[in-house]
Amino acid sequence: MDLYKLIRDIPDYPHEGILFRDITPLLKDAKGLECAINQMSDELSDVDFDIVIGPESRGFIFGVPVAYKMHKGFVPARKPNKLPFDRISQSYDLEYGSNTIELHADAIAKGQKVVIVDDLLATGGTTKATIELVEKLGGEVVKIVYLIELEGLDGRKILGNIPVSSLLKY
Amino acid sequence: MDLYKLIRDIPDYPHEGILFRDITPLLKDAKGLECAINQMSDELSDVDFDIVIGPESRGFIFGVPVAYKMHKGFVPARKPNKLPFDRISQSYDLEYGSNTIELHADAIAKGQKVVIVDDLLATGGTTKATIELVEKLGGEVVKIVYLIELEGLDGRKILGNIPVSSLLKY
Repeated sequence: MDLYKLIRDIPDYPHEGILFRDITPLLKDAKGLECAINQMSDELSDVDFDIVIGPESRGFIFGVPVAYKMHKGFVPARKPNKLPFDRISQSYDLEYGSNTIELHADAIAKGQKVVIVDDLLATGGTTKATIELVEKLGGEVVKIVYLIELEGLDGRKILGNIPVSSLLKY
Repeated sequence: MDLYKLIRDIPDYPHEGILFRDITPLLKDAKGLECAINQMSDELSDVDFDIVIGPESRGFIFGVPVAYKMHKGFVPARKPNKLPFDRISQSYDLEYGSNTIELHADAIAKGQKVVIVDDLLATGGTTKATIELVEKLGGEVVKIVYLIELEGLDGRKILGNIPVSSLLKY
């Protein structure tokens, strides 16, 4: 199945000069969604891991079904002040300003092997901050799986030696 | 499996006097997550429907795996200005202030049968706004499935005659 056909290009969104890759046609196509989840899960078939993390909110869209299919638990990495229990935080720079992402302090146990799942690898800032939070808790990120990778932004370069897979490359 | 044991009570969150039901222990428990998704999907086994909608962002957590398991597509209902294509909006009242939720104008085709999946039925405002958006597009909400229902808030009363299921009741 050609998943590229289910991605809609939106010019000048969210800013002039940006070509946004809209995943909603893929999501609403039952076969497209199933194919994307299955292919992302296939990237983990040989990986020894304990749990999946997905960053809010589009990381939830792919992270939970991948966790479900692979018979693992799921940890949400959330925007500030959304998690109700004890939290740890990590800020990261954007082109203009900065963002912060949080995990529950008990989300990952020491020594756990973690997979990060998200929709998009752009500059890699969110993923890098998530890796730092996992490592603060004594866990180890063993693989990262994206639906889409914007290769021109070279996000892989800040992710160290962790193996990275993406289904669709632009 | 007793899913109640995987819900953590957080007193006085997000405001004094509120007992928050934290779902993250359930999510990170592989068997708990699998059981919740399977039980929510079971509520749809006799329902004739075309597509699942989940409101951002915790509706994504349950809506996508339920759609995946039931071999349906998924439509995200999002917070304002998050969807990149033509949108329709619906505002709804909160205890203090109001919120707005949006759908892509092409998210639902006329005559489509829609299931709404979310983590929590409280006052029902988000669900009611989502129903109104589906109906604006000519779709019909045929069932609503929640993980948790706060029965004391009587959210069902604003949802009309649409069948509602919830796994955990408080």
